[in-house]
Amino acid sequence: MQPVELAKAYRLLNHGPTVLVTAAHAGQRNVMAAAWNMPLDFLPPKVAVVIDRNTFTRGLIDASRCFGLSVPRAGMLAAVMKAGSLSGRELAAQGLDKFDACGLQAVQPAAAHDNGATLSDLERATPLVEGCLAWLLCRLLPEPEVAARHDLFLAEVIAAWADPTAFSDGRWHLPAEESQRSIHHVAGGAFFVTGAPIQAP
Amino acid sequence: MQPVELAKAYRLLNHGPTVLVTAAHAGQRNVMAAAWNMPLDFLPPKVAVVIDRNTFTRGLIDASRCFGLSVPRAGMLAAVMKAGSLSGRELAAQGLDKFDACGLQAVQPAAAHDNGATLSDLERATPLVEGCLAWLLCRLLPEPEVAARHDLFLAEVIAAWADPTAFSDGRWHLPAEESQRSIHHVAGGAFFVTGAPIQAP
Repeated sequence: MQPVELAKAYRLLNHGPTVLVTAAHAGQRNVMAAAWNMPLDFLPPKVAVVIDRNTFTRGLIDASRCFGLSVPRAGMLAAVMKAGSLSGRELAAQGLDKFDACGLQAVQPAAAHDNGATLSDLERATPLVEGCLAWLLCRLLPEPEVAARHDLFLAEVIAAWADPTAFSDGRWHLPAEESQRSIHHVAGGAFFVTGAPIQAP
Repeated sequence: MQPVELAKAYRLLNHGPTVLVTAAHAGQRNVMAAAWNMPLDFLPPKVAVVIDRNTFTRGLIDASRCFGLSVPRAGMLAAVMKAGSLSGRELAAQGLDKFDACGLQAVQPAAAHDNGATLSDLERATPLVEGCLAWLLCRLLPEPEVAARHDLFLAEVIAAWADPTAFSDGRWHLPAEESQRSIHHVAGGAFFVTGAPIQAP
């Protein structure tokens, strides 16, 4: 994975892929799927994502004030579905970890971020999901009423990375192989794969 | 176009297509492109969409408190690009109409909505874009601070329609022909077409 210039980070989400949301706090961590995400601003880059108040991830984000977004590949479909259906809270109550239950590996690229002065310890410890096309590390904006009323989290993207075989120089060049492309959830496990590129005249 | 059950309306946007945002007020109307949109709730269905404060559409929405979202087909790509780049304000100052300038036709399906008691005159007069895959008619939620701080509009979907050859019984079955599929903007006129359906195990 290679760093993505912050001015181009919105392009990682602009086409509307379903993402994995990750967070960690006080020795606990979780991962969930979220189709309801979008860019909110270009620079500094901001994002909006809906995180239901009943999720285990929500409590971790409320505590850590940060989260990760990982853009999964179609080849990870079974794991994405588990992330969207298994309850992190129920697993945690049994002493189980949802990354493990989904067959996902957590990584912490920000732990090695060379600009450590700008990242808090919690931000640097935020997990992201191994094997994804792209990662965005996000810091909550202080909008508690929006979160309380609409389960809607607004955040600034403070670091981003992408697999250079799929995204480089600010552009997607997704491999043609379906398993390597991003995915778009509709409902009930029905997804679309990201299709062919087209350029407007 | 056929009505879409409100409980299924979120599925029209769940896969992250770029949409056309439309609004009208006091004899003026406009259309713009918006990649930054997403569902916000299931039922009543709600949506979130970013509408820059400098757009002509923004003023119309602030006045009418309602807007339309239309999901365009790839065959409309040139018109979508014009909707995303031409200034409705500059056109209006010249006495020109942006629908005309983009080669788009406005329609008002809600004008014939049989449940008129629940729709205001402004809502029923809201234009939508002819030839699209789906339409959502939206009523602003009272979140003026969110709009002021983030250009972010939250709204309830009060009616929805879709082309039954592409979406029926709550499911997308997009024609295989690329020109008939929805589109996902990345940046600078580079889009992805919605690709193949895949079903999680």
